[in-house]
Amino acid sequence: SPTSKRSYSITLLPGDGIGPEVTTVAKNVLDFTGSLEGIKFNFREMLLGGAALDETGVPLPDETLSVAKQSDAILLGAIGGYKWDKNEKRLKPETGLLQLREGLKVYANLRPAIVFPQLMDASTLKREIVDGVDLVVVRELTGGIYFGKPRGFSTDENGEESGFNTEIYTTHQIDCITRFAFEIAQKRRGKLCSVDKANVLEASMLWRRRVLAIAEEYPDVELSHMYVDNASMQLVRYPKQFDTIVTNNIFGDILSDEAAMITGSIGMLPSASLADLGPGIFEPIHGSAPDIAGQDKANPFATVLSAAMLLKYGLGEEKAAERIDYAVLDTLNRGFRTADIYSAGTKLVGCKQIGEEIMGLFGSAV
Amino acid sequence: SPTSKRSYSITLLPGDGIGPEVTTVAKNVLDFTGSLEGIKFNFREMLLGGAALDETGVPLPDETLSVAKQSDAILLGAIGGYKWDKNEKRLKPETGLLQLREGLKVYANLRPAIVFPQLMDASTLKREIVDGVDLVVVRELTGGIYFGKPRGFSTDENGEESGFNTEIYTTHQIDCITRFAFEIAQKRRGKLCSVDKANVLEASMLWRRRVLAIAEEYPDVELSHMYVDNASMQLVRYPKQFDTIVTNNIFGDILSDEAAMITGSIGMLPSASLADLGPGIFEPIHGSAPDIAGQDKANPFATVLSAAMLLKYGLGEEKAAERIDYAVLDTLNRGFRTADIYSAGTKLVGCKQIGEEIMGLFGSAV
Ligand SMILES: CC(C)[C@H](C(=O)O)[C@@H](O)C(=O)O
Ligand SMILES: CC(C)[C@H](C(=O)O)[C@@H](O)C(=O)O
Repeated sequence: SPTSKRSYSITLLPGDGIGPEVTTVAKNVLDFTGSLEGIKFNFREMLLGGAALDETGVPLPDETLSVAKQSDAILLGAIGGYKWDKNEKRLKPETGLLQLREGLKVYANLRPAIVFPQLMDASTLKREIVDGVDLVVVRELTGGIYFGKPRGFSTDENGEESGFNTEIYTTHQIDCITRFAFEIAQKRRGKLCSVDKANVLEASMLWRRRVLAIAEEYPDVELSHMYVDNASMQLVRYPKQFDTIVTNNIFGDILSDEAAMITGSIGMLPSASLADLGPGIFEPIHGSAPDIAGQDKANPFATVLSAAMLLKYGLGEEKAAERIDYAVLDTLNRGFRTADIYSAGTKLVGCKQIGEEIMGLFGSAV
Repeated sequence: SPTSKRSYSITLLPGDGIGPEVTTVAKNVLDFTGSLEGIKFNFREMLLGGAALDETGVPLPDETLSVAKQSDAILLGAIGGYKWDKNEKRLKPETGLLQLREGLKVYANLRPAIVFPQLMDASTLKREIVDGVDLVVVRELTGGIYFGKPRGFSTDENGEESGFNTEIYTTHQIDCITRFAFEIAQKRRGKLCSVDKANVLEASMLWRRRVLAIAEEYPDVELSHMYVDNASMQLVRYPKQFDTIVTNNIFGDILSDEAAMITGSIGMLPSASLADLGPGIFEPIHGSAPDIAGQDKANPFATVLSAAMLLKYGLGEEKAAERIDYAVLDTLNRGFRTADIYSAGTKLVGCKQIGEEIMGLFGSAV
């Protein structure tokens, strides 16, 4: 009977561009997995980003935030597009996403960068450099220069205009994200690299000081420090040196995208944004790709894998998560590819068919 | 007679680690080139960085700054080392370098990232991706979060500590670096990409607005904009798409190092830091490599090429600069390599011998 099932409410935020296509696939995959694992999902679709701007005039409607807050997890597609690029800040799709992160206090952003052996040749880096790369960037997501105040514009007595932002971290913020990262590193290969610019920035000096202090609680994790400019080089030089990277909001934005591109598997990479209490946000790291939206060309793998992270990190449903991870690998092994990851000898299919291939596996292979 | 010669005063700042070795080679190469071109150099060696800290207790002695200001150009080796890593900010080698940049108002930092065909295989990227990469990062060097105020530490009523910095740009600062970058792009392949984070940061919104305004003065240059996270991906995905990149101080720090590593020629890359009036600073982009200091293992090519930039951009001595560029290429062609760029079939030699090989060419080949 339905009441014997475990039941979760999921907020769906398809967003813009290819967002709706890829979240539809991921939703179907979740439902299918649920039917096999005795899990019921109650989806509620809400507006965010450009889609919300067009409908309601704001990028994060109050109703979206309150529904999201009351749900067990949030599955997000992608936001943004040329159409809204010139909007003032308050009316940018991105602002809606930032308000959502802040509203849900999801301070810990987990961005795995792994190489799918089936797609290794898609990397621009040499095979021996990328083969076996398996790292995760833990990015602080609700602090730093993204949210620091004061921020804005000012004009001095001579009519000279300035634009300014504040990079700021408190001890508490650093301690939280650092502990989170140490816990992740402990469950992985036991190596944590903290990235900062402590040779120049006071915010980074405090960062480094606190990371060193928290490290005493985790003697089993090997800690190192790297300046951000060096980290951006080291990711290119020898990415396999990294296990877990922890860094601030803006450095994490830059380095996690660089790491993702290095794997060559950028259309494949999911992310999780987690709070201490309350629901997390799960989304692909790729963007809204407005140029191919609505053409059934989008790659839904990253969103499907985000749904797997939702099951694992958001709901603690590890078994269901593994089903999805397994089905994705098997779909790749059977040669199914969207255009962005297509190579000679594989089968080029659309977004929807990838979803069907993933689900087609469940009954038999698992 | 000596008075018929053109004569320049050069401040030498060897700095720390391998700095002294590589600047000695570059100084000798300058002297030798000068003797062929009828140029006389008056070198004056001054203290900077850790070397200055150990001697005088500060990382930039007043005398160094005033001698530098009165000279025609500054040739710098490298600064920093483990020894001073834990110093408080005021007493870090890096602080000396930042004070020097600020004192000389060298707001325009030019960082070419080119692939030397002889070293292409040293790149971790595939040959077809790096072959032909020839880009330059124009980094704003005396503003932004490196110098913005307020900055520091504070403690709130609950004893919670914060570290903070200010990212700030004025219209004037942006206009200067943007014009500088457009002029560079005009002399290159006519393409300028401005990198910012205008979807989040007010400082970047003003940046983008001003770049668009200044663009009207340069209708012959093709302008594009990229968010910094995307730029860090695009450098890995397809570096040949870039000609000239212009960006702020911190993004330039990160992206120029990434671009350098992508070429595989990191031990080869020079840089120039220029002011509107007064002398520029010319230095290799690599660091002080304390682990190999004093062992005649350092690669002096980047510093020698920085000396060539000094001649070209600092003194307008284009012919002498070309002599050096040519001699460097020929030394590579003849197979001479330091350990960092050695590969099977080439000749492994020390820092000094590279200098001798470069100079050995002048009489005959040029
Ligand atoms: C869209 C943008 C605001 C966002 C960010 O900068 O955080 C994106 O780049 C990301 O990394 O999720
Ligand atoms: C040493 C450091 C202060 C410096 C910087 O961050 O500017 C260096 O990384 C550089 O790029 O020249």
